[in-house]
Order: sequence, then C-alpha cells, then structure tokens
Amino acid sequence: MSYSLKPDEVAAAAKDWLEKRGVRIEDIAEITYALQKDYVEDVQMEDCIESVERVISKREVQNAVLTGIQLDYLCEQGALIAPLQDMVKYDEGLYGADEILALSIVNIYGSIGLTNFGYIDKVKPGIVGRLNDKTDGQVHTFLDDIVAAIASSAASRLAHNTYDAEKPMTPP
Amino acid sequence: MSYSLKPDEVAAAAKDWLEKRGVRIEDIAEITYALQKDYVEDVQMEDCIESVERVISKREVQNAVLTGIQLDYLCEQGALIAPLQDMVKYDEGLYGADEILALSIVNIYGSIGLTNFGYIDKVKPGIVGRLNDKTDGQVHTFLDDIVAAIASSAASRLAHNTYDAEKPMTPP
Amino acid sequence: MSYSLKPDEVAAAAKDWLEKRGVRIEDIAEITYALQKDYVEDVQMEDCIESVERVISKREVQNAVLTGIQLDYLCEQGALIAPLQDMVKYDEGLYGADEILALSIVNIYGSIGLTNFGYIDKVKPGIVGRLNDKTDGQVHTFLDDIVAAIASSAASRLAHNTYDAEKPMTPP
Amino acid sequence: MSYSLKPDEVAAAAKDWLEKRGVRIEDIAEITYALQKDYVEDVQMEDCIESVERVISKREVQNAVLTGIQLDYLCEQGALIAPLQDMVKYDEGLYGADEILALSIVNIYGSIGLTNFGYIDKVKPGIVGRLNDKTDGQVHTFLDDIVAAIASSAASRLAHNTYDAEKPMTPP
Repeated sequence: MSYSLKPDEVAAAAKDWLEKRGVRIEDIAEITYALQKDYVEDVQMEDCIESVERVISKREVQNAVLTGIQLDYLCEQGALIAPLQDMVKYDEGLYGADEILALSIVNIYGSIGLTNFGYIDKVKPGIVGRLNDKTDGQVHTFLDDIVAAIASSAASRLAHNTYDAEKPMTPP
Repeated sequence: MSYSLKPDEVAAAAKDWLEKRGVRIEDIAEITYALQKDYVEDVQMEDCIESVERVISKREVQNAVLTGIQLDYLCEQGALIAPLQDMVKYDEGLYGADEILALSIVNIYGSIGLTNFGYIDKVKPGIVGRLNDKTDGQVHTFLDDIVAAIASSAASRLAHNTYDAEKPMTPP
Repeated sequence: MSYSLKPDEVAAAAKDWLEKRGVRIEDIAEITYALQKDYVEDVQMEDCIESVERVISKREVQNAVLTGIQLDYLCEQGALIAPLQDMVKYDEGLYGADEILALSIVNIYGSIGLTNFGYIDKVKPGIVGRLNDKTDGQVHTFLDDIVAAIASSAASRLAHNTYDAEKPMTPP
Repeated sequence: MSYSLKPDEVAAAAKDWLEKRGVRIEDIAEITYALQKDYVEDVQMEDCIESVERVISKREVQNAVLTGIQLDYLCEQGALIAPLQDMVKYDEGLYGADEILALSIVNIYGSIGLTNFGYIDKVKPGIVGRLNDKTDGQVHTFLDDIVAAIASSAASRLAHNTYDAEKPMTPP
C-alpha cells in the first residue's frame, strides 16, 4: 500500500472544518482589520480577507487547524482519555497545548505577530470571544487560539508587505 | 458542576501512558546518558534517571505527553478525520505538529536543548528508533519526538545543574 | 588561558544592569500583581516580588537581559552597524529580534505565559510604558519586551504554583 | 527627523556581512544539498543555491543575520559588557541566545526544519564546522548557528515545494 500526499485535499479539509465549526474567513479578517487600521494607511477589508486566505493556504497552518479542531471535536464527544478529556473540556488554566499549536502559526510570519496574538487571546474580540463563550455547547479550546493566531498572522503579513517605507517614525 | 484540577492524577496518567506505550524511564535516561557522558564528568546513569523523572514531573511535559499519545492512539484506531488520519499514520513529511509539541518540552529547559533534540530526532538512538520503526503495529508519530524532547531536556537540566565551573574552555 | 563559568557574577550583572537601566524588581512585580489579582485569590505584592526574583534567578533569563540591554546600550552610543543602528534606535516595526529574546524567557514557564506577554507588550502598563515612551533619551527597544516577558513569566509561575485546585470552573 | 525603512539596504547589508564574515551562499547551499539529496529525487545544487537565496531574502532572516554578526563582531573587539564578553567569546555552554536567534529563522519554514537544524548544529558539517573551529581568530558564536538555521530552512523550503506527491511511503 502506498501513500500519496494530496495538498489540495488537506487545504480543502482545513477550510471545510473551519466553516463547520462556525468560523468564516470574514470573521477572522475583521479582527485583522481592527488590528491594522491604525498602522497601515488605507487598509481595506478586502486586503484583510485576502491576507487571511493566504495565511490559510500554508500547509503548517492547515496542520494546526486540523489537529486543533480534531482535539476539540473528540472532546465534545467525550472520546479523550482521562484526565485530558476534562483539561480540554474546561480549557484548564495550566493546559497550554492550544497556545503551542497557535504559536506555530504565528511564528511563520515572524516574531512581530506575537504581541497581537497575545492581545487578541486576552481581549477576545469578535469571533474569538464567540468561540470562547461556550454557549453553543461546542468545545473550542484549541480553535479560539488558532483563530487568534490566523488573525494576527494575517496582520503581520500585511505589515511585511505594505509597510510604508516613507512613514516618519518618532526618534527616541 | 464544578471542575477540580488534580495535579497528581495528571502526573500519574502521563507516567502510565508512557509505560503502556512501551517507554520506560530507563530507556529515555539511556539517551540522556549517551548525550552527557562526554560533557559532564562522572555523570552516572542514576543522575540521568533522576533528571528524566524531574522533567516528567513538569505539568507542561505531562500535557505534551498526554496530548501526543492521545493523537497516536486515536490514529491507531482509525478515529481521526481524513486527511489527518493518514498524515499522522504515515508520519507525513510536511506534518510538523509532533515537532511543535516536542519543542514545548525542550523550551522549558532553554535553547541549549535544541541541538540535542534535533540530533536525536535525526539519528534515532535506542527507544526513539524502536518507536519509529513501526514494527509493533502501533503508531508513534508523536511519541518518538516527545521522547527525544524529554531525553534532551534531561540533558539540558543536568548541564544547567552540574556544569563544571572550573572546566577550562578553549578560547577562539 | 582557561575560562571559568561564574554563575554568581552573571546573576549579579543581570540585576545591576536592570537597575542601571531604571528597572526595579518592584516595577516588574506591579505588572505581575495586576495580571494575577483577578485569578489567584489572596495574591500579595510580596508573592509577586518573590516570583519576579525567582524568574530572574534563571540563567536563560539573565542571558536575555544582558544580551538585550547590551544591544540597547550600544545603540544609544551609535555603535551598531548600519542599518541595524536605525532599526534598533527607532524600534522599527519589522525588526523582531527583541520579541524573540523575550519569548525565550516566556517559554521557560510554558505556553500559558504567551497571552499575558502579548497583552502587556501591546497595552504597555507601568514600567513597560515608561521604557517605551523614549523621553529619557535612552534606547529601550529590547528592554521593554524583556520586562514584559519577566512580568508575565512571574505570573505564569504563580499560576503553576498556587492554582486553586478546588476552584470551580464553568463547563462549556 | 524622520525615519524611512529601506528594505533593499537591509537586504544588501545582510548579504555583505555574511560575505565579510567568510560565508558564501554556496557554502550554505552545500549543507542544504547534503540534507536533501536522499529525500528529494533529482535535487540539484542550483535548486539549493536558489533556496538559500530565497531564505535570505526574508526580512526576519536578515534581522537575525545582522543582529548575530553584530554581537560576534563587537565581541571580537572586546566591546561587550562583562560577563557577556566572555560568555560570547567562549561560546559558553549555558549561553543560548545564539540558538534562540537561529530558531527564529527555522520557525519561518515550519517545525519540520527543527530536526535538521539540531543535527547540523551538532555534527557541524562544512562551513558550520569551519566557523566553529576558531582558528581564524574571529568569533562566530552566533554566526555558526545562523548558518545552520539558513541551511536547514532552505531544505525545509525545498521539501515544502517539491515534495513528491506520488512517492509511496511505508505504512506502519
């Protein structure tokens, strides 16, 4: 028996599962937009949507999305081994594997995304807050961090691409 | 319903699952010993065993152990969503979530463990090679990296604790 | 010529340089206190001070402190090679080596510190804001991130040590 | 006074300094070639050279190159503060800021590069060994790790781009 990599299949599965779990590209792009509008002049919502799509097109991001949603989903069904089941279900304060997977997304766009990631993860704007409020009966312990990571990575990507080379900066 | 953290239960589960998956503390300590014997004078196997036990007593390490073994185990039972099922089963070259979880262990003992981790992960000595050879019918895509991370972390820990303060070093 | 590691000397130098650059342990502990008071019942300022001191006693943290302050200091004197001189002086948006060094501190206490680190780095409370406002004529491009990392690491350390095992958590 | 980002200047400075410190693109590409020739069929030296060039064209990589060489260079001139001066000069075993900067390069191409990075850093093939042998009187404490990181990142990049989608993989 042989194994074939199917890049298109992996990409499609990541997109499908985001949608199945209630996350639209636009939801993520809204956070990216809020992060960038004060820094990048004339940033448009369409730029943010495109940037989110480009982030999601990376294989490492798809790996994190599928792995994280997998763990959330199995937890919902009570299929994890004790005591991991409860640690994931209650998003226990000392369980950090969700942040670790998210960090692997942020790192791809460099360390300048770390600050935004941490900020979003704490303030929980928009879709991140909705995933985290636990009112839909679903478990999103991994997904809320992953969405925060995608949004901040899309902002880093815009910063790298559109940084205004002539913008005056305040000297110390 | 309330949730209580049970640190002893998490620690016990991590130890149990390592054993159930065929990994003994001594197996890991052997790799640590091989890494350290050229650097730390008079290092003993008992020191390495104790160092491995101390690494495993950290909550972050237990989190990684339980999460990684969980994914291996569900994969063995064919319970992962396609295409993640095949990516984990065949330890696909572009799937790196196993290295990411392992890195979270290594980082706790600082960046000096990175080199040893990468080396073990490539050369696959002892138990790491046995986990990786796939002849026991089990899936250890995550566990081999986690064991490599624990072994190199235990070596970093020894280096931090027993570094010979008077050992002459070659100047450039 | 031989080289001897002098752990006490490295520890003392890190403490001295923090002070010389205007950062007191109490300043850092204030941020830790603000982060923890909503999560850890009965947390006291003294606990935070002790936690900051314990973080700073780690060799990896001392390495980051000395390396970061070194770069800030040489930049102040105009001693860096162009264009690094300007990148550090103006804390350029695409220069992320400061976040990288800071991350090496945060990682030691596990991924749960990432969120707090990013939040502090963005909101810039207390001493972090003072270091960042550039009114003292000094360059603190590295130091503000390092202080944010120490404060959030001290909070993670408290969380790991004093997490209320019986605190009820909201189920999803 | 205003500050303008000059991306071309940063890129040119990184390339110049690599050359001034005795590192040619071809030297790095040789390591990439050695890493990849067993995995990617028909990989050519030209592919490796191009991949190294693409890695070096990333801003985060240029930041790490300039920052690391800066510290090596100032150390050579005895310009670092004690005890950092000796820690860098003797590439002290507990000093890990060099590995940290290197990791920020590796992370950009995902976690699959970690293994190769650690392996190269330990085995020290080609240019990495020459930088490390300290016979040229120069200090390359940071640069050897950075070169190892660029070589393994270029290998990861090739793996992501040219992975043979139809290559049969051994099932467990």
